[in-house]
Formats: sequence, structure tokens, C-alpha cells
Amino acid sequence: MSRSHNFSAGPSALPLPVLERAAAELVDFRGAGASLLEMSHRGPIYDAIHHQCTEDLRTLLGASDDYSIVFMGGGARTQFALVPLNLRPTGTAAYLNTGTWANGAIKEAAKLGDVTELWSSADSGFDRVPAPDAFRVPADSVYLHYTSNNTIYGTQYGYIPDTGGVDLVCDMSSDILSRPVDISRFGLIYAGAQKNLGPAGVTILVIRKDLLARSRADLPDLWNYQKIAAKDSMLNTPPVYAIYMVGLVAQHLLAHGGAAGAAAVNTRKAAALYAAIDGSDFWTGHAQPGSRSQMNVTFRCPSPELDARFVSEATAAGLVGLKGHRSVGGLRASIYNAVPEASVQALVAFMAEFERTNG
Amino acid sequence: MSRSHNFSAGPSALPLPVLERAAAELVDFRGAGASLLEMSHRGPIYDAIHHQCTEDLRTLLGASDDYSIVFMGGGARTQFALVPLNLRPTGTAAYLNTGTWANGAIKEAAKLGDVTELWSSADSGFDRVPAPDAFRVPADSVYLHYTSNNTIYGTQYGYIPDTGGVDLVCDMSSDILSRPVDISRFGLIYAGAQKNLGPAGVTILVIRKDLLARSRADLPDLWNYQKIAAKDSMLNTPPVYAIYMVGLVAQHLLAHGGAAGAAAVNTRKAAALYAAIDGSDFWTGHAQPGSRSQMNVTFRCPSPELDARFVSEATAAGLVGLKGHRSVGGLRASIYNAVPEASVQALVAFMAEFERTNG
Repeated sequence: MSRSHNFSAGPSALPLPVLERAAAELVDFRGAGASLLEMSHRGPIYDAIHHQCTEDLRTLLGASDDYSIVFMGGGARTQFALVPLNLRPTGTAAYLNTGTWANGAIKEAAKLGDVTELWSSADSGFDRVPAPDAFRVPADSVYLHYTSNNTIYGTQYGYIPDTGGVDLVCDMSSDILSRPVDISRFGLIYAGAQKNLGPAGVTILVIRKDLLARSRADLPDLWNYQKIAAKDSMLNTPPVYAIYMVGLVAQHLLAHGGAAGAAAVNTRKAAALYAAIDGSDFWTGHAQPGSRSQMNVTFRCPSPELDARFVSEATAAGLVGLKGHRSVGGLRASIYNAVPEASVQALVAFMAEFERTNG
Repeated sequence: MSRSHNFSAGPSALPLPVLERAAAELVDFRGAGASLLEMSHRGPIYDAIHHQCTEDLRTLLGASDDYSIVFMGGGARTQFALVPLNLRPTGTAAYLNTGTWANGAIKEAAKLGDVTELWSSADSGFDRVPAPDAFRVPADSVYLHYTSNNTIYGTQYGYIPDTGGVDLVCDMSSDILSRPVDISRFGLIYAGAQKNLGPAGVTILVIRKDLLARSRADLPDLWNYQKIAAKDSMLNTPPVYAIYMVGLVAQHLLAHGGAAGAAAVNTRKAAALYAAIDGSDFWTGHAQPGSRSQMNVTFRCPSPELDARFVSEATAAGLVGLKGHRSVGGLRASIYNAVPEASVQALVAFMAEFERTNG
């Protein structure tokens, strides 16, 4: 098998040993006589996987028992509505607008109640996140919502916002467990799995338990954080296989130094790629230097024609997923936890050769 | 590998060739250099899978172009709320109450608006579905909702309700594609995949296109049937792997005679099992004969102690998933499409031997 260098933005690269183990266990799960895909979610085998995954995520995140870890289907975008429905029975929620998904969260919340947009980088093509002192959270806000890493624009917060005591909610879909984070600063974190955690099909929530009491009683059961958490995410049939894969990824990460281990590698990968971009006038980065993401590196060639040639030639050379999102154009290399350093080195080498022949 | 006889109620048995193919393709998808789990859902490889699955389901169901086929995450229970939110902007919806899930659908719909329960078998332990003339659908109902097969109680409708022109909505989670159905009789069918269609993690909707216009504009985007259908179920990242597996199951079913082929086998399997139950006073069926399900066969031994012994000894003999749901007790054999006739024969033989030694 020739394995591509996979820079897809999500679904995205998974650790090869995780895939190999999943393949080996698929037909007959650890000698059980059936596939995990065929087993009741109420049975002991899945139950053990479910709870081990929960506990491994808790360990990796450093989340205390003050927090519930919850699995939901439906994708992180579903949370754009569920967050206000559960956490904002009344009052105004504050939002920071740093890109497509941050803005999507604002739009859904505004359909359902009052929203204040405290800061936006829309006018500069979402090329930055706010400086820590660029916004002030009104003390009567129900919560502050932000997007820690902006997949499309390639920006990332280098700090946790100071809310002055207002509960902090974060869409951490594209950088969860890419670096250590002080979970105790948050009221709620949510993340679609398909970047750093596993395949598409499950969203992970880390929610401070006292917030669960805010869920409106008239919500449908499966949108009610309190009811789902009370049943350990088994109020209904969970997305069994996606959670199993998240569990394998979590075990892989635990064996490789956890979030701190990932961060050390991620810092090296991002530094190498930004050095290549900054090392020549041929390349232009999209994100402002103080806002650059370690997960999604957005850049471009001197012309859209060269961008297109780059994508085409890179794909032919086994470097895939490098086309920028249509909102930004240009190029994007997503270098999540599971993208090996060797892939980044291959990309840097390919960039140098491309510049040499096209510069 | 010793493969169990798998009678799980869901997640449940999958065709062995489907599992073997999924395992073979998991690490390197058809020579692409990456796992399907790692690929962008916007790329050509997943796109082809997504649309092939849609078209194969359309063929299997016999759904005309008047219908959209939609994939959603979140499980069929999510639809208990989404159906009224999308289809009942105002007015009263009619429901038939034939068990736990039918009742769950009623409760969610009642949180969100007006509901009329036309008929219920709660007083007889949900041991039956209504006779075709046992209810009349008020002409001003927004829709009639029923549950074609009741997984827990082992009952199934042998007919499609006559609504007198009111739109018909069916939770077909546990018998979809187990038999041919005239789709043109329905406004909306929904089904969680984890019985006859694939693994847990995706719900399939078949919706008559004119109903899409009813979706309330103030719904969150990902709960809006119209918006999701307009984007071919790719408004956000779909549950890629679950849809891929549904596609494999669909191709397997197409190669084995479709719904009619499945029905022929299912009829034989159910007949063999009910004959065993009826053939001796040792066994008592739960469902009334006219309401018996071909998918979930509910029965019991002369005592709870014998039920427990049966489950224990059957499990030891490689017949798994036979414990009845806690709401009913006793035993339940779920014999969905992917449960081979040989498994049913093994169960019938085991029952005979159990009766001989315990009768």
C-alpha cells in the first residue's frame, strides 16, 4: 500500500495503527463471534468501549469530575442551535466572529434568541482572531462563545478569553487535543470528531455539570444536554462505531504523550510550514502572523493559476487535500495530530521544488 | 472465526460479505492511498459512494423522483421531534400508539404542538396493532404517524393504513426493506439504519418533495428537511462511514432479490420460529397472531427463571441477543434481513432441546 500524504481539512488523517487495528477487528470483534457493528449498545462489550473512551478522553483533556463528557450525533453544527437552546433560557449570549463556523453559530443562536457580536474580523477576510484585550464581555451575558481554531481561514486563538466570570463556550472542533488546555476555564467545549478525534459521525461535549440544570424541559429529549448526560450518552443508540474509533484514537494519543506530546509535534510541523511560506516572496500566508493556526495553514501562490497547478501536481505526487476552501481560495494544509511530520517535510520539499520550477 | 447466531434487536446482524469487504477496504480504500474515514466528504470518492447509496436505496424502495432520500445523524428518535417541527407548522397531528417508540413519538410531538392519539394498545401490553378499520383519521389531521414494526413488543402492521388523503408518516426503523412497500402511499418514511440497513449512526428519510416546503424557516438549519434535502444531505459533514456501510448493505440486497427477495426469506424464517412457539404449550408468544412481527419474535418460557436459563444456555451455545426487552421480559429473537435462515434453524433446534430438558 502506498499511503498518501493527507492534508484534508476533515474528515482527515487518522493514525495508521488505529486504522490497521480497526480493520483487523472489524469482522470478528476480539473473538466475540460478531462485529462490533452488529452488537447491542446495551451489551457488555460496547458498554466497556463506551466508558473506556469517556475516561480516556477525560484523562487526555484533564477534565475533573465537575465535567460530564457527552457523545452526540449530528455534527458540531447541530450544537450551534443546541448551545443556546440548552444554556440560554433567557438573556443575551455573546459571540466572537472569526470565520464561517463562528458566524454560523451566531446565525443559529440569533434565530432562537438574543445575541451580541462582540468582535468580528469579517472586514479583513477573517485573517485574524482578536487580541486578548480587543473585546470586553458584558457581565450580564449568558455565555461567551468562540471558535478556538478557524479551519477555513487558518487562524487560531493563542489564549483562552478572559470573560470576567461569564461562562465560556468553545467550538474546539478543529484543535481539540492538539495542545494542552485548562478545561476548568470552560463551561462547555464541543468538537466534531472528524479532525483530531476520529471519523465523522459523533460530536464530543465537555460540559460543566452545574450547567446541565439550565436545559429547557420542553426541549426534545435528544437535544437536552441534561437528559443525555444523565444517561451517559445512551439515551438512544449512540453512533457506536464512531465512538469506538474515537476510543482507539484516544488510546493512541495516550500512548504518545497525550495533548502535550501532540503539541510538541504540532509546533514543529507548523513551524516548518510557516518557515517555508515566510522564506520566499513566492508564497503568501492568509492568516496574520499573531493569529496563525497550528492545524490549518492557509497560503497561496502568486496567482490562482499557479494555485491550481500546485494542487494538481501535488495530488499527482501523493500530497492530497491541499486545495483551499472556496471562501478563501489558494491552498490549505491541514496538519492535525495524525498528520505525520514526514508528510509536512514532504510538503515543504514539494513547495521548494514547485517554486524552483514556477517561480 | 466462529460466528455467532446473532439475534440482537439493534445494532444487529450485518451480512458477512459486507463486513468482510468493509474490513478489506478499511485501511486503504480501493487503492486510494487513504482510508475512506480520512477523506473529505466533498471529494469525488465519497461523493460517488454517497450518491450510489442514495440511488440504490431509491431502487430498492421503489421510490419515484417525487421523493427525496435524505441521510441524517442523530438516530430515529431525533425524528420524533423533527417530524412535527417540519411537517406540522400548525394544526393537529394524528398518531397510533403501538409501543414504546410509537409512544415516544407522541410524547415529543405533544411537547411541540397538538396531537391526537387515535388508537392505543397500551392496555393489552402492546400485544397488537389496530385492525385496518379500528381507527378513523380526522380529515383535518396534518398527518398520521405510525410505527410499522414494534421492535420491543414484536408486533407489525400487515397493511398500510388508509388515511383518506391525510399524509402518512411512518417510523419504519425496524422493518424497512424487509418486504416490498408501496412508497407512493407515504408522505414520509424514516428509519434508523441499525436494523436492516447498516450500523448505528445514520437515519434514512424518504420524503415526498412537496412536503419539504412545510419546513419552518426559523428551524436550525440541520433540523430543516428542506435545507438538508436541497444539499443532498451534505449541508454539513454527513456520517460518512455509516452511509458507506448502508451502501454496501444496499448492494448486497440488490444482488439478493431486493425487498421481495428479503421478504421471501423473512417469511420462511418467521414461520419456522412461530411454528416452534405454537407447536408446544411450553412457549407463549407475546404478540397476538394477527399482529405478529416478521422481524422481532417475542415469546417466553413457562417461568422467568426458565427464561433466564434459556438466555444463559443459548448464549453459551453461540445464540446471542435473545433476552427480551425489559419492558416485556421473556425472550426476543430479532431476525432481520441479515440473520441467516441457518441461525433460525439453529434457534428452533435449540428451543426443542431446551424444552426437552426443561419441559
